[in-house]
Amino acid sequence: MASKFSYEIIHVDKQTGARVGKLTTPHSVITTPVFMPVGTNATVKGLTPEELKDLGAQIILSNTYHLFLRPGTDVLDAAGGVHKFMNWDRSLLTDSGGFQVFSLSKTRKIKEEGVEFASIIDGSKQFISPEKSIAIQNSIGSDIMMAFDECTPPGVKYEYAREAMERTLRWLARCYEVSKDNPDQMLFPIIQGNMFEDLRIESARRTAEYARCGIAIGGLSVGEPKEVMYHMLEIMRPYYPDDQPRYLMGVGSVDCIVEGVVRGVDMFDCVLPTRIARNGTAMTRVGNLNLRNARFVKDFRPLEEGCTCYACRHYSRAYIHHLIGKDEMLGGRLLSIHNIHALMRLTEDIREAIMEDRLMDFRDEWAANWKDKITED
Amino acid sequence: MASKFSYEIIHVDKQTGARVGKLTTPHSVITTPVFMPVGTNATVKGLTPEELKDLGAQIILSNTYHLFLRPGTDVLDAAGGVHKFMNWDRSLLTDSGGFQVFSLSKTRKIKEEGVEFASIIDGSKQFISPEKSIAIQNSIGSDIMMAFDECTPPGVKYEYAREAMERTLRWLARCYEVSKDNPDQMLFPIIQGNMFEDLRIESARRTAEYARCGIAIGGLSVGEPKEVMYHMLEIMRPYYPDDQPRYLMGVGSVDCIVEGVVRGVDMFDCVLPTRIARNGTAMTRVGNLNLRNARFVKDFRPLEEGCTCYACRHYSRAYIHHLIGKDEMLGGRLLSIHNIHALMRLTEDIREAIMEDRLMDFRDEWAANWKDKITED
Repeated sequence: MASKFSYEIIHVDKQTGARVGKLTTPHSVITTPVFMPVGTNATVKGLTPEELKDLGAQIILSNTYHLFLRPGTDVLDAAGGVHKFMNWDRSLLTDSGGFQVFSLSKTRKIKEEGVEFASIIDGSKQFISPEKSIAIQNSIGSDIMMAFDECTPPGVKYEYAREAMERTLRWLARCYEVSKDNPDQMLFPIIQGNMFEDLRIESARRTAEYARCGIAIGGLSVGEPKEVMYHMLEIMRPYYPDDQPRYLMGVGSVDCIVEGVVRGVDMFDCVLPTRIARNGTAMTRVGNLNLRNARFVKDFRPLEEGCTCYACRHYSRAYIHHLIGKDEMLGGRLLSIHNIHALMRLTEDIREAIMEDRLMDFRDEWAANWKDKITED
Repeated sequence: MASKFSYEIIHVDKQTGARVGKLTTPHSVITTPVFMPVGTNATVKGLTPEELKDLGAQIILSNTYHLFLRPGTDVLDAAGGVHKFMNWDRSLLTDSGGFQVFSLSKTRKIKEEGVEFASIIDGSKQFISPEKSIAIQNSIGSDIMMAFDECTPPGVKYEYAREAMERTLRWLARCYEVSKDNPDQMLFPIIQGNMFEDLRIESARRTAEYARCGIAIGGLSVGEPKEVMYHMLEIMRPYYPDDQPRYLMGVGSVDCIVEGVVRGVDMFDCVLPTRIARNGTAMTRVGNLNLRNARFVKDFRPLEEGCTCYACRHYSRAYIHHLIGKDEMLGGRLLSIHNIHALMRLTEDIREAIMEDRLMDFRDEWAANWKDKITED
């Protein structure tokens, strides 16, 4: 029987080696480079599945840590998985819960068996092991499962980073063991190694042995300077499997996506576009607009000139400024639509540039116009 | 030139005298009895205009008091009115700000000229007179404007209720004066009189003189027992103009709509369906469901069996329970859609019963099944 998962490379950019590819899962075909919107609690905040489809999303993320605590696997099993629970019939990717165990829970105890931690909901004692992480992801029914890993923050000592990397590799072997015969869910292993060049290389090399249809890069964009992240991406690049997509976890700003693709990354995800939307920020080709600013009170232009998203076709900056100022749900909703659309359009433009072997030109042109924050326009 | 406003009675129910009618405004034709969703700040909380149209809304409300304070008339004038500002091309009705001046502002000073009050936004001193209320509603560009009135709470002394009623009538004359020649905006006068029978009758009689294409009933559903409201509706009924729609302000629960139509009311509005939606409550034919209740955790039935709304077609009670518990925007959105749909369907059923001269039978059947709150099903 042919595998339900495959990755086909359509074109390799002559300037950068970046690729356009097609990743097939049991639920959809995903063209890479791709940005994946995040639906932490089995919902992309404020949006319906139909809106996500209209925006062109072929795959979204959900969160193993959060869904394990609420609603719990008994509900997910009874629901028949998250696809049915949330009415999403395209691809779904779940992280392993590893990152949240380390970043969200106030106390945790790391053992060889797994991690004991306090629930963010009620402080109750919980336990996730590699096997349990996969079992939860089985209940979720995601197309792509992530291996349970230990993500170390920037600044840890070399010895600890190596220890965590070795543990992550041992946990990976256990995740692999309980998922390798699952025809409906593909495991992506995760490279760690903190900001140490030799650990990153060693982790990439040894992690690649477990990669069948995709490999992930974890532990970046966790507080280190962007240049450090870009450097780590360059260091690891020779060691990825050539014929599989590479997924840079938790990255979703315009600049990091452009610079990531140039350095060989195919997949991205982040809560950023929807989180900053709820705070009143619009992402544009040239930088971020803070719609709370009083200068928008009578600005009847769309969020972004030439943008074809629902928000830009029907509403003005003045109206969205009004909604955000009054804390109206529609404000965050319109900005979420605009921001996800902006990243969908960005990856579309990137794919077009790759197909035409001009990604470096595209990158340089983009960088010449880019401002981190727009204060006038 | 023919007026841009008209009301045509299609059928009068033989059992109750309730009517099905068509109210025409410059922006749409509204079939009555009608429920009008409320968009206080130029947005029906959480919903787009397209969703409201899909739900069958021909008219929505907006709030003069709130829009006067934010974004203010200079912005509304620059935007070309609220229709354009919020992307709504069907009918719009605005209240006069009178009710909010009396119910929301902590301090106020009532003078013959108008009312001085403290803004709920920043406590700043503000002033609205009858003429100013109409001027704000001109900036908003609503199809139906309400007269500026004084709404007294239940429990005030007879003398004060009469004084307020007389003042409301004098203010009405001033509102009429500055709106009678406006071909695009129709003024609805408002009956007051607190819970005093003779005042209600006198107010209805004298207010009717200013009614050209609709009359409103104010000062009810403000805390008095429902039976008192129903009694007041019966008392006033002989004094409404026969050929115009009657609008019972601020009423939007299932029971009050049914009982209101039976007593001759044609138009209703309320924040209730969207407000209780955000709190996790679903309105059904037989009562309200509190989706926060733990009994829904594995209940994979739709909110209401047989309901054809978007929420019921695609999502389970278990999923909505999960969303509401996690404070996810989509939860309030799905319940808002369901609740507005429930009231749209209710008024549709009511119109059908009227057309078939069986409204009293419909009312009795409904009442036999009605529970204020459903704790089991």
